[in-house]
Amino acid sequence: MAGNTFGDIFKISTFGESHGAAIGVILDGCPALIDIDEEFIQSELDKRRPGQSKITTQRKESDTAQILSGVFEGKSTGTPIAIVIPNEDQRSKDYSHIQDKFRPSHADYTYQVKYGIRDYRGGGRSSARETAARVAAGAIAKLFLKQRGIEIFAHVSGVGKLEAPNLDSSNLQDLLTRRESNIVRCADPASAAEMTEYIDQIRKNGNTVGGRISTVIRNVPVGLGEPVFDKLHADLAKAMMSINAVHGFEYGSGFEGSQMLGSEHNDIFVNQDSNIRTLTNFSGGIQGGISNGMDITFKTAFKPVATIMKDQATINEQGDDTTISGKGRHDPCVVPRAVIIVEAMAALVIADHLLKYEAYHNAK
Amino acid sequence: MAGNTFGDIFKISTFGESHGAAIGVILDGCPALIDIDEEFIQSELDKRRPGQSKITTQRKESDTAQILSGVFEGKSTGTPIAIVIPNEDQRSKDYSHIQDKFRPSHADYTYQVKYGIRDYRGGGRSSARETAARVAAGAIAKLFLKQRGIEIFAHVSGVGKLEAPNLDSSNLQDLLTRRESNIVRCADPASAAEMTEYIDQIRKNGNTVGGRISTVIRNVPVGLGEPVFDKLHADLAKAMMSINAVHGFEYGSGFEGSQMLGSEHNDIFVNQDSNIRTLTNFSGGIQGGISNGMDITFKTAFKPVATIMKDQATINEQGDDTTISGKGRHDPCVVPRAVIIVEAMAALVIADHLLKYEAYHNAK
Amino acid sequence: MAGNTFGDIFKISTFGESHGAAIGVILDGCPALIDIDEEFIQSELDKRRPGQSKITTQRKESDTAQILSGVFEGKSTGTPIAIVIPNEDQRSKDYSHIQDKFRPSHADYTYQVKYGIRDYRGGGRSSARETAARVAAGAIAKLFLKQRGIEIFAHVSGVGKLEAPNLDSSNLQDLLTRRESNIVRCADPASAAEMTEYIDQIRKNGNTVGGRISTVIRNVPVGLGEPVFDKLHADLAKAMMSINAVHGFEYGSGFEGSQMLGSEHNDIFVNQDSNIRTLTNFSGGIQGGISNGMDITFKTAFKPVATIMKDQATINEQGDDTTISGKGRHDPCVVPRAVIIVEAMAALVIADHLLKYEAYHNAK
Amino acid sequence: MAGNTFGDIFKISTFGESHGAAIGVILDGCPALIDIDEEFIQSELDKRRPGQSKITTQRKESDTAQILSGVFEGKSTGTPIAIVIPNEDQRSKDYSHIQDKFRPSHADYTYQVKYGIRDYRGGGRSSARETAARVAAGAIAKLFLKQRGIEIFAHVSGVGKLEAPNLDSSNLQDLLTRRESNIVRCADPASAAEMTEYIDQIRKNGNTVGGRISTVIRNVPVGLGEPVFDKLHADLAKAMMSINAVHGFEYGSGFEGSQMLGSEHNDIFVNQDSNIRTLTNFSGGIQGGISNGMDITFKTAFKPVATIMKDQATINEQGDDTTISGKGRHDPCVVPRAVIIVEAMAALVIADHLLKYEAYHNAK
Repeated sequence: MAGNTFGDIFKISTFGESHGAAIGVILDGCPALIDIDEEFIQSELDKRRPGQSKITTQRKESDTAQILSGVFEGKSTGTPIAIVIPNEDQRSKDYSHIQDKFRPSHADYTYQVKYGIRDYRGGGRSSARETAARVAAGAIAKLFLKQRGIEIFAHVSGVGKLEAPNLDSSNLQDLLTRRESNIVRCADPASAAEMTEYIDQIRKNGNTVGGRISTVIRNVPVGLGEPVFDKLHADLAKAMMSINAVHGFEYGSGFEGSQMLGSEHNDIFVNQDSNIRTLTNFSGGIQGGISNGMDITFKTAFKPVATIMKDQATINEQGDDTTISGKGRHDPCVVPRAVIIVEAMAALVIADHLLKYEAYHNAK
Repeated sequence: MAGNTFGDIFKISTFGESHGAAIGVILDGCPALIDIDEEFIQSELDKRRPGQSKITTQRKESDTAQILSGVFEGKSTGTPIAIVIPNEDQRSKDYSHIQDKFRPSHADYTYQVKYGIRDYRGGGRSSARETAARVAAGAIAKLFLKQRGIEIFAHVSGVGKLEAPNLDSSNLQDLLTRRESNIVRCADPASAAEMTEYIDQIRKNGNTVGGRISTVIRNVPVGLGEPVFDKLHADLAKAMMSINAVHGFEYGSGFEGSQMLGSEHNDIFVNQDSNIRTLTNFSGGIQGGISNGMDITFKTAFKPVATIMKDQATINEQGDDTTISGKGRHDPCVVPRAVIIVEAMAALVIADHLLKYEAYHNAK
Repeated sequence: MAGNTFGDIFKISTFGESHGAAIGVILDGCPALIDIDEEFIQSELDKRRPGQSKITTQRKESDTAQILSGVFEGKSTGTPIAIVIPNEDQRSKDYSHIQDKFRPSHADYTYQVKYGIRDYRGGGRSSARETAARVAAGAIAKLFLKQRGIEIFAHVSGVGKLEAPNLDSSNLQDLLTRRESNIVRCADPASAAEMTEYIDQIRKNGNTVGGRISTVIRNVPVGLGEPVFDKLHADLAKAMMSINAVHGFEYGSGFEGSQMLGSEHNDIFVNQDSNIRTLTNFSGGIQGGISNGMDITFKTAFKPVATIMKDQATINEQGDDTTISGKGRHDPCVVPRAVIIVEAMAALVIADHLLKYEAYHNAK
Repeated sequence: MAGNTFGDIFKISTFGESHGAAIGVILDGCPALIDIDEEFIQSELDKRRPGQSKITTQRKESDTAQILSGVFEGKSTGTPIAIVIPNEDQRSKDYSHIQDKFRPSHADYTYQVKYGIRDYRGGGRSSARETAARVAAGAIAKLFLKQRGIEIFAHVSGVGKLEAPNLDSSNLQDLLTRRESNIVRCADPASAAEMTEYIDQIRKNGNTVGGRISTVIRNVPVGLGEPVFDKLHADLAKAMMSINAVHGFEYGSGFEGSQMLGSEHNDIFVNQDSNIRTLTNFSGGIQGGISNGMDITFKTAFKPVATIMKDQATINEQGDDTTISGKGRHDPCVVPRAVIIVEAMAALVIADHLLKYEAYHNAK
């Protein structure tokens, strides 16, 4: 109800503020006997970690995950897995200047009015730092899905007005290698170079810019998704929209599909060597809210980071006019780090629906 | 878990298949003492009803809502409100030709594999007929919100490549009148005429086309939305994506916002006569997942209806190649009727979050 | 949240007031392909039906269940099963004398204060008539469990100070036959005769009396129950305490067990022909909140029916002293009809936990 | 779903094993601006702490609560409150002898079969050590309820066959003082002395014994409880039955009430100086599942602790016969420490229902 829990069967609850003692997560509902590879969890956190390149915030956090429960001799036990990530590099004094001012397009004002109190340091609970907890839990979801052969891949497909070409997604491992070979996390090398250059220019101007992330999920069995409200794409949409700064979501043909004719848009079924598939995939791998075995594809749009290194007019808690100056350590563009958050949330949605599916499927 | 329930406090559960005895809904969590205006509920259903114009399906359903419980002497009692809408004009024989064939871009295939059985008549549970139940419950949500002065308005802002201009939303009653004066439900008369003409042409060709719906919600108090997962826009996204044929959702600046710079996108706070607002509204009335008192704005993209009056290749349940011919009574474009579904789901989300807000707000 | 839903995966939502148009239930989460035997559902309702003997209320209701959705050609489809039971014999005028009076030990006062409005006719929503909807859904749960060989048996083990001896539960079908051979629903013939006589005497005096129901569930696999909060016995307790008039619940050794020593109470494990069991069963088939394969046993205590055919002092809505006279048609003792409600709720709990178990079990 | 979460609005999720790194809890849904008195939280934990007297286990745990989030400058912020309690005195080697044996009437066998893996050290997740997390969260619930004047008091009313007399509950502070003046936590001094003596004797014999706890909740407003399934007493029952070793629950007249006549059992309403109350309170402060303003009263029965200092026959994981010897540090009787767990769970139920009540109540 208070909004800090996601998922029904494979379920996470996160906690923590940007400048508190720690952030963390309880993952409840992870099946027993999953190999919990702590190095993998850490490697995922490292991809989201601040300070990893010149185009990310320079806050220094090791983001070291400590597993407090639910794992015995390297395997999940079916009991809640609690993970804590201590906060280390809190320069709270960087925030004393905003203690009673509302930063434009941040959550300062709404938190203050809603709760009557807020931990203003670094945005408190509204900080994207919370997403590190999601990445840790998402890493375990990936380990679970890996046992079933399900793969998830996201990359930066757009920054500002720059747009990467559509990629052949038949080899996700190859795309992953290409994505990790550049700091912007775009799997198309030419676009990546252009985007890196552009973001670095934006950063030097003290400005920020938005971007887009495209995701593919492969080898999902037919049958995931619970109509009519918990359609697979509806839960993916909610998961994505719950990530800081996301303003748009589309799957399959998306907004463009709404400009098409039925005769163009319909995906024709074919039987290829006892493998039922569709010739096109405007459905994005989901029909009637249920996965159809084709690649699940969706795109997510992120607004520009609200903190800019420029003076802006605003008001304070008393409602008086004032000016706010950009301080602190922030990202010029959020998508290079958000790629791993998108993958984590996607993994959590698929893991949750996989367990729902098995509850009923086995029952038949 | 099985996906037929939406909302936490103001909560609906729908049931029913396209060609079964009836469809319906239980609304649990409606506060007591709300005036239940049955005429209003019926008038909402009439806007979604099939057969209302030449550009909608010709299935004839009166869609008469029967309230079975939860209302006493015209007022809600705080107990579950059950509403049943009998199915009347089921021409099930129209569907005998698809009994063992999978219609392209429909849910026939995924339902069959997921459940091992399906009511193939009219798409069974996957039919958009289910949304009549949502409209009935949404009408009660609107009656509740009306007591608080909250208004919701949606209209068709795009059909295929046609796009209506942005409208001044300062007078929603006026827009509503304009919207209801044409059969496509677009509040801009010139665009409406163009769209109507276009859809009618599409219909005559036996084809279908997608479209877009824009929504504004006014007078929502500051504070609705539960971070971090149940952000107000995340729940709106899930609600919208759960509507049949929706492939995309964006709020505030949306996908376009992801092309902007932070310095352009930030909404500057001002205090206008003790009324705190922002000069622009790229945030779409929601910051940090919480309503900020400005108009809440979002857009939804609908794919073209999958049933077209043309022969299409497909496979049957045995996996053999076959051909399917378009039959039955279908909409050439879904958005004119979907406007009222979008409003209903929006009302349900706002009502649910309003009650959550009051649980905690009062507790302070 | 508003309390009219029970279960997580195999989930019911009931609606309806005693003297409204109908009562009913949506069962969401019933697996597909279960044979829905409508005659069995009706036979279960007939056991709960009023007017079945001289020691039950004389209200005449056929309690005919109408299935509106979720069943196709005799089988569940995996979509919500809606069942409606119309109210027929509402003598609402029997209740005009209590329109503004609060009956002692009824829910009139608490409903009035909580909701500010109440349907006073027959107790409205607080009437045990609502439990007919539970019995209908419980019948489907039984059909599902039957496919797995799980059996549930309840009978009246106590009325007032009368107590039936403990019964050998190795043949539940036999006990069922014996139970159904008498109107009090006690499987011990001698006790049944005594109880019938006693209740009839109470009835003639215009009084009422409490009673107890004992339940056995057999062939539950090891592993049902989700620690630490959703222990199998905790969910059984909630289910039973949610039935009108229940004031107590115990499982296994129960209250008596709290008087014992550990050396007496421990159940010793033995391996009998590769069948692991315990020599005693003070654990009631549940250890650590999880079924251990032994018979699950519990007992439920019902208070005397509050409506008596005598004058009682009370107050009215204005807070003034007044007198209330017993009228209407009521049961002198609730347990003979409640047996089937207890079984229904037990079946719903086991079905729900079975599906949870399979979600995780299959995942291994 | 996996059972480690309790509550809907005021909601806790616990984690941790007996001999893991730590146990803990996330409390999500605590309203903002509650004074979080850390000393009070610690004093509650101290009452549940092991090693506090000769009649409790000698395991030494300081049970120091660390708040990681959700509190800013001494007040709750409305964001999740995470509390971690490190494990200190784990003598895991005490448990090597049970690594592959199933202790009688423990959860070893059911956990092993359910999950296929278990942390056998100290019972792992099934250990009552988990309840320390509940006590920490319950302390915050008490702080919230205290602001509303709601008081909760539990004490040991029975040990084995010993039973304390019923107490006048008009002054709960006085009873609390008397309870805390003895190590058995019974508010009747004479009974306390007898019980202490008895438990100490049991302990010296290497045996254990069961007991009973009685609870009173005062000043609960009329209107808490959500019929028909989430009746206030149904949620209290589930909460109590979820505590380790609890085998029985009754409220108001309880099992005894089932032996009474309606004419004896009905609680007559009276208006005493505009204060509506009942002359008797067999209803236990709850009618129709909703609090009626009278004292809420219930009793809970605990079985004897399963670990005894005697040799017992059992089987091992291979299914072979073996013998198990009592080792480790255990309580001879669980009720003196369980008093505080009962209060904590009661506080969590009332806090949750209070917020539900306010959601709807305010909405009127």
